[in-house]
Amino acid sequence: MSKKKPLILVTNDDGITAPGIRALIEVMNSIGDVYVVAPDAPQSGMGHAITLNDTLYCDSITVAKKEPQIEYSCSGTPVDCVKIAVNEILKRKPDLCVSGINHGSNSSINVIYSGTMSAAVEAGTQGIPSIGFSLLDYSIDADFEASKKFVKKIVKECLKNKLPKGVVLNVNIPKLSAKEIKGIKVCRQADAHWEEKFDKRTNPVGRDYYWLSGEFVNEDKGQDTDEWALANGYVSVVPVQFDLTAHHAIKEINTWDI
Amino acid sequence: MSKKKPLILVTNDDGITAPGIRALIEVMNSIGDVYVVAPDAPQSGMGHAITLNDTLYCDSITVAKKEPQIEYSCSGTPVDCVKIAVNEILKRKPDLCVSGINHGSNSSINVIYSGTMSAAVEAGTQGIPSIGFSLLDYSIDADFEASKKFVKKIVKECLKNKLPKGVVLNVNIPKLSAKEIKGIKVCRQADAHWEEKFDKRTNPVGRDYYWLSGEFVNEDKGQDTDEWALANGYVSVVPVQFDLTAHHAIKEINTWDI
Repeated sequence: MSKKKPLILVTNDDGITAPGIRALIEVMNSIGDVYVVAPDAPQSGMGHAITLNDTLYCDSITVAKKEPQIEYSCSGTPVDCVKIAVNEILKRKPDLCVSGINHGSNSSINVIYSGTMSAAVEAGTQGIPSIGFSLLDYSIDADFEASKKFVKKIVKECLKNKLPKGVVLNVNIPKLSAKEIKGIKVCRQADAHWEEKFDKRTNPVGRDYYWLSGEFVNEDKGQDTDEWALANGYVSVVPVQFDLTAHHAIKEINTWDI
Repeated sequence: MSKKKPLILVTNDDGITAPGIRALIEVMNSIGDVYVVAPDAPQSGMGHAITLNDTLYCDSITVAKKEPQIEYSCSGTPVDCVKIAVNEILKRKPDLCVSGINHGSNSSINVIYSGTMSAAVEAGTQGIPSIGFSLLDYSIDADFEASKKFVKKIVKECLKNKLPKGVVLNVNIPKLSAKEIKGIKVCRQADAHWEEKFDKRTNPVGRDYYWLSGEFVNEDKGQDTDEWALANGYVSVVPVQFDLTAHHAIKEINTWDI
């Protein structure tokens, strides 16, 4: 049993043909038996959305003919992909779920908006060791060479050491060459947020509409945060939990007159 | 200043005409100056999704003629509604954001799928005291009478005591009369998850598709959980945080060879 290759589920939120997931599949093929179940179109910013009031398609496809992985293209969100993979596509629970490599950062508060990380979290809720990977480069032509090296290292250690119960990993990689990257830092999520700036326009029939845009504001000066690590040339690894209880606040709210 | 009425933002995920948000508006009108910015259609299960690649409409509307609240109907997700309300609609940062009353439970792990709770969390990330309310009754004809009493009590205490930084409240109300409800319990999120059961069908042109459905599995026997409180006739209040860092896991992962 111990010599069996691990069964690895790969997904993402940029869509099944994105260069980032292709890089991730390449690395995973060197480690285990790979199933890909990923969105048929970009799903960035979908957070933990699921499809409740619509149908889901999930079709077997071949993206790369000579590669060993088995691939399915799904009409749903990243979280839908994980649910349908685990319950309909895979013969057994996978040994690992990896999501990404995302084109763009999912550090700090971005973890809650990220379809990439929500897919990893969903797998975590189902008891599957799980990691989301993101490269700090939004470009479709992003260079994933350095990322591949760090993805392999972290995945191998994860398979060897296991993850604590209820914890998945949020890995962000700076836009640097492998030589320039100083190493890997285990971090906490920086206390940052988005300040929105809506772009208000008028459509051709005179109705106002908006484009959402915003500015990322990080006032957290800690040197133990993911933002600090990334700004200083390190890969950041944040252990993420889906028990959202603010345990420290229970005592305080128990003093309320309710 | 202290006698000024609080400015309250109301939103939800069932849509601006849902009976649940109407009940919430009624209670908020008795406490403060109310702005409603809510989705123009149901957005259940949208989690923390935001609209990145599409336009957003946000139109002033009148749902109830003789009522004092000001209302806007938004084409986006619950999180979009909060962002556009705070940055485009409201003249100043609101003193409170309330979301709901959701038709159906958002207890335990449902917090991560819930548009209702994601709206509350989004307000929290922007430094706004925030509470999501849900009634354990999915019916459109759900009876919100008992809920109104508990919503008022909790909101008044929240305005008086303030919330700890980085914490919002997830309030779930059992489907019982006010007399039957035993009280309010501050709880932790139960360690539960969903086991999916996809319903596979074939469309009229022969292509397979799926409906997502599932079963809620709670193996957490703790008597300090939201599930326990609700099953035993109490309103559950879970303090929820959006720092997702599993702080306890940092030490363990630092022992990995990475």
